[in-house]
Amino acid sequence: MPDNIAGHPSVKNHSSRTGLKPSEMLLDRSYHHAAMKRLPDSWKRGRPDIVHFALMEALSTPLFLKGRLKVYVHTVNDKVITIADNLRVPKSYFRFEGLMVSLFRDRVIKSDEGAVLMELADGSFSSLVNDIGADKIVGLSTAGVQSSVHKVAGIAKGIDDCAFVIGGFPSGHFSEKVTKNLGPTYSISDFGLEAHVVIARILYECELLEEGVHHEGNE
Amino acid sequence: MPDNIAGHPSVKNHSSRTGLKPSEMLLDRSYHHAAMKRLPDSWKRGRPDIVHFALMEALSTPLFLKGRLKVYVHTVNDKVITIADNLRVPKSYFRFEGLMVSLFRDRVIKSDEGAVLMELADGSFSSLVNDIGADKIVGLSTAGVQSSVHKVAGIAKGIDDCAFVIGGFPSGHFSEKVTKNLGPTYSISDFGLEAHVVIARILYECELLEEGVHHEGNE
Repeated sequence: MPDNIAGHPSVKNHSSRTGLKPSEMLLDRSYHHAAMKRLPDSWKRGRPDIVHFALMEALSTPLFLKGRLKVYVHTVNDKVITIADNLRVPKSYFRFEGLMVSLFRDRVIKSDEGAVLMELADGSFSSLVNDIGADKIVGLSTAGVQSSVHKVAGIAKGIDDCAFVIGGFPSGHFSEKVTKNLGPTYSISDFGLEAHVVIARILYECELLEEGVHHEGNE
Repeated sequence: MPDNIAGHPSVKNHSSRTGLKPSEMLLDRSYHHAAMKRLPDSWKRGRPDIVHFALMEALSTPLFLKGRLKVYVHTVNDKVITIADNLRVPKSYFRFEGLMVSLFRDRVIKSDEGAVLMELADGSFSSLVNDIGADKIVGLSTAGVQSSVHKVAGIAKGIDDCAFVIGGFPSGHFSEKVTKNLGPTYSISDFGLEAHVVIARILYECELLEEGVHHEGNE
C-alpha cells in the first residue's frame, strides 16, 4: 500500500474491516479503487490476483517442478521477487496475500528449516536482466510480431538460458524501461490473452521441445 | 456451507469477522479446516480456489472465447453449474466468492440486461453427461492410461462433441458414480498435475488440432 493513499477512506474502511494496518495490505483494485485515482500508472497497479494466477501457472508446470525454470517477479516500483526452486505458492488467495504481505514486510520468506523460499530486493528491470544473464530476452505482448507458441518457445532451444518476459498487468504495454531490455517481442494469439494463459502455453511448448516433439501442419 | 457444521466455532468466528451468515459462505478449508472434520468426503471439499483456477483457465482460452467450448461444474453435492458462452469470471477471488455465494442463494446470475450468465441446478454427474449428449466422455486422471496431451485432445477431432472431465479436488480420484460414466481415462504427465494445468494443456492442443497442427517426434 503506497504511503500517499494510506489515509484514503477506502483504505481506512478496508483496514478497520480486516484489522490490518495499511502497511500490511496489498494494493488491490477490488478494495481500493477509489483511492487509486491519485496514483501514477494506476491502470497497471493493484492487481495482485494477476500475479497470483501467473505464479500459480508457472510453478505448477513439470518444467518448474523439474528445476528447469527460474521465476522472478519485477514490480512497478522496482522490487524484484526471487522464487526458490520447487516453491509452491498457496492457491487460496487469502493465504497468498498473507505470504506476500510478510514478504514485503520482512523481505524474505523462509521455511521452518530456514531455507529461503522467496526474497524481495530493490532492483530495476535492467538490473534483473543483467543479473539473470540470459542469452536471449524474449517479450510476449499483443504489440509483438505474430508468431506461433511453438516457434517462440523454440528460441529457448539450443541456447543455455532464455528469459521470457510476460506483463502481469490488466491492459496496456510494457513500459519503455522494460522494452529497451527486450530482444524480439512476439504475439502468440489473435486474442489478447491473459498472462497466465501465455505462461501456460509457452512453458508447455518448452517441455515438448525438450522431449523432442515438433509441430507440423498449418503453422 | 453445509448446515450441520454451521454452528462450529471456526465457522462462527469467520461469520462474525466478515459479517456474513454461514448460509452466505463458501465452505473453504483455509477458514473452516477444524469444522470440516465432521464432513463426509471432507478431503474432496472446501476448495473453491481450485474451481476458481480451473474456471479461469478454461474461460480465458481462445477456444472458449470463440464459442467452441461449453463449461460445466459438477459439485460433490450433485449441483450442476452451467456457464454461459463468453462469460468472464472475476480473477479477484473476493469477487468470485461473492458471485458464487449469489449463485448458490439465487440459483441464477444474470447480467444487467437480463441474460443468464450462470445457472445452478440439481443434477447427478450421470444426468449431466446425459444432458450434454457428448459422443465421447474422456476422463483425465493420474490413474488413467499414460498418453500425450496431443493424443488425448485428438479424440475430440472428427466427432461432434467430446467431453473432457477434470477433477477439481486436491487429491484422490473420481468417485465410482463419476467413473462409471467415463469412457477412456488418461494420464497426461508423470507428475500429478493441478486441474488448471490439465485444462490449459488439453484446450491448447484442441486449438492446435483445429488449426491443423500436428506433432512429430518422440511422443
